[in-house]
Amino acid sequence: MVMIPLPLHHQDTSEFSPVDPSDPTLVHRGEGGAEVRRSILPGGVRVLTEAMPGQRSTTVGFWVPVGSRDEQAGHYGSTHFLEHLLFKGTATRTALDIAQAFDEVGGESNAATAKESTCYYARVLDSDVPMAMEVIADMVTSAVLDPFELEQERGVIIEELNMDADDATEVVHEHFVAKVLAGHPLGRPIGGTPEEIREITREAVLEHYERHYRPSELIVTAAGSLEHDQICSMVLTALADAGWDLDPLAVPEARRSAEPATIESTGGLEVINRPVEQANIIVGCVGITGHDPRRHTLAVLNAVLGGGMSSRLFQEVREKRGLAYSTYSFSATYSDAGYFGMYAGCSPAKAGEVIGLLGAELDRMAAEGITDEELRKAKGQLAGGTVLALEDPGSRMSRLGRAEMVTGEFQDIDESLQRVQAVSAADVQALAAELAARPRTTTVVGPFENVAALGLGG
Amino acid sequence: MVMIPLPLHHQDTSEFSPVDPSDPTLVHRGEGGAEVRRSILPGGVRVLTEAMPGQRSTTVGFWVPVGSRDEQAGHYGSTHFLEHLLFKGTATRTALDIAQAFDEVGGESNAATAKESTCYYARVLDSDVPMAMEVIADMVTSAVLDPFELEQERGVIIEELNMDADDATEVVHEHFVAKVLAGHPLGRPIGGTPEEIREITREAVLEHYERHYRPSELIVTAAGSLEHDQICSMVLTALADAGWDLDPLAVPEARRSAEPATIESTGGLEVINRPVEQANIIVGCVGITGHDPRRHTLAVLNAVLGGGMSSRLFQEVREKRGLAYSTYSFSATYSDAGYFGMYAGCSPAKAGEVIGLLGAELDRMAAEGITDEELRKAKGQLAGGTVLALEDPGSRMSRLGRAEMVTGEFQDIDESLQRVQAVSAADVQALAAELAARPRTTTVVGPFENVAALGLGG
Repeated sequence: MVMIPLPLHHQDTSEFSPVDPSDPTLVHRGEGGAEVRRSILPGGVRVLTEAMPGQRSTTVGFWVPVGSRDEQAGHYGSTHFLEHLLFKGTATRTALDIAQAFDEVGGESNAATAKESTCYYARVLDSDVPMAMEVIADMVTSAVLDPFELEQERGVIIEELNMDADDATEVVHEHFVAKVLAGHPLGRPIGGTPEEIREITREAVLEHYERHYRPSELIVTAAGSLEHDQICSMVLTALADAGWDLDPLAVPEARRSAEPATIESTGGLEVINRPVEQANIIVGCVGITGHDPRRHTLAVLNAVLGGGMSSRLFQEVREKRGLAYSTYSFSATYSDAGYFGMYAGCSPAKAGEVIGLLGAELDRMAAEGITDEELRKAKGQLAGGTVLALEDPGSRMSRLGRAEMVTGEFQDIDESLQRVQAVSAADVQALAAELAARPRTTTVVGPFENVAALGLGG
Repeated sequence: MVMIPLPLHHQDTSEFSPVDPSDPTLVHRGEGGAEVRRSILPGGVRVLTEAMPGQRSTTVGFWVPVGSRDEQAGHYGSTHFLEHLLFKGTATRTALDIAQAFDEVGGESNAATAKESTCYYARVLDSDVPMAMEVIADMVTSAVLDPFELEQERGVIIEELNMDADDATEVVHEHFVAKVLAGHPLGRPIGGTPEEIREITREAVLEHYERHYRPSELIVTAAGSLEHDQICSMVLTALADAGWDLDPLAVPEARRSAEPATIESTGGLEVINRPVEQANIIVGCVGITGHDPRRHTLAVLNAVLGGGMSSRLFQEVREKRGLAYSTYSFSATYSDAGYFGMYAGCSPAKAGEVIGLLGAELDRMAAEGITDEELRKAKGQLAGGTVLALEDPGSRMSRLGRAEMVTGEFQDIDESLQRVQAVSAADVQALAAELAARPRTTTVVGPFENVAALGLGG
């Protein structure tokens, strides 16, 4: 784990985005009075907000840029375990106090552990933002990790893992990612395994908490009905009250390198035998990183191949042949690795045929490219979908957090859409060709005793 | 199936809600310029809209108040089958045309078949509303139900049912509802069974379409960025172009009686053996109807018993004992029947204990009632949650449709919240006592060969 100081423009917001020299926190001014602002607080805490006029609610998120990939052997599952334990009580609040604080105002509060980050968030009416800030800050700074509560929570987490284990779609995704990322830490399951959770010690979780929850890595984002300065002041007060060391000279630290990892994926076929009605299938390969400029090309590729009812996969697998209810393509991009896949759920008797169809569609795009009409429609789809998604304050809150963590720069919607507009049909074909040439991983969950039972020819 | 003409005030919007005598379509004027309007078009078509200033998107829904409960023997599954076929082509549009129309603007379009209604809806940017209206109206009026497409779609629907059959949580809910509603048509699964779908004929689906998709039962609702008169004019033009008979004298028809059905539920225990990791458990009973004035009391009861992280079930089952990841209470209210239940997913070895805990919490509320503090917090939760939910145009679009179908009257948020405020702790205890005294149905899906394997005492 290497800590990389961010380049200077991350600490100096007027250089970061010189919208108005007299207004140094302003990063972007959008239509209808929307404003994105960014401040660095003492301790190096970053705060990014997006004010959305007309909203009555605010969504707030505290991001710690540490995820399951950062765990060492013996600590697998500790990031997600810690996430659960932050809700179980602090020096001044019981678990019930925390739960009641959000419930009694009708707010939504939850957390999400991912492979490269953990986020604690809440959506509340704007008048309840001070409460939400205070409670989440208390959880992030002052959780007690009570030993008795930890034992109770161990059982809850094992039930959460068992619930996922009963979901064949979840299982096929997890096995696919593990296989395609071939030993890279991003390939491990986020929550750990039930065995790992049974064995993890309080010391391991506590060490994780003390090492990673600190000001220079913390990012707070908020979107909706808000004022930037008020949010900054609430964050600062809450962290200072908790006794965090807020050195005025501290600067933010970025955790990740942008250097792509070498993934030695050999591809291949893996069959997981489960007594289910549907075969769940993924065919895919290593993808691109979150820093790769081709991510806009990948968005277009996904839209054409498997992004909606008019996509090629939906048309070929569902509409023309009636083989599946659900079929789509997907991708994930992380700091130094990524993956790409095509999914379908079908009758076990048709699994061999569907595996062939999924692969053939990627090969066809690699060989023949896409039409101008498909390109035009995919761009329309991405443009409209982006604008629709961003009517939700939760999406905007997440976008601020992810942008700050992954690329360290905010990209306004028009700028993103311009990059999408710049994608050509040749770009898409070139990327499809690259993906099609990579070792191909096929993962199947279904009632198959062995690979032969799939009935694949040849 | 009896058609009941609505009382006069449903046809005369100035009586329906005399907000302003000079503005007869206005039903409600909310804060920030929000307006609910209702018009009856020729043919008896009802149009309800809610303008939400500041939004850029609009959600539009076409409601046909016919659901799976209205199906006759031999036609089971036809409502849902028809819903799928409406996307498969009209006299002037192929399935691909329909899919592309929404995809290329990044819109979301889908449909939902329920037990008492079917809704076709789309969320698009406001500039794309004319397209959305035209396409959905075309689907509702002019689907061709092509025999070849129908055969393809038969396979897709069977895959959809298989997907649900692989979801133990889905399975436990479906079996619970069938058992607790004891032979009432609301107890049948919405999509039919794979056997029924294999056997259904085009004639059955066509008959369903021709009989039920007609102006005097159609309700169109929209929320977001819109103008009421424009929406009305688009609907009228689209229906007239499709050749629908739009008699200027026709009046809307309501399908349902408000008379509660007699449900002869005897309760009991049903165990469905599945090779899964988690036992999925529901304990519940017959509930109340959507016309029952106690529905606000039921909302408070659910909030206290199983509505959030601070609820009794969450605290007793998850926080104190670590037995489950997911536990909650729920209820459904239909025109003449309803049900109430408590859910938990837990380790199979703990199923007996969890069944006992769920039942005990209902009994305790029946015997001891709730505290004033719980009452106060539940009301806060419902108030905040309602306001947050209604920031989403989709929720508002649905609320207009459901209100019109179920009670025939629009209730503004303040009015709903006032009714919740009026609920007393004694009301909640009385309802809990009534539910606790009803025959209790317990449904379990898990790795149990028989009832004895559950290890229930006594």
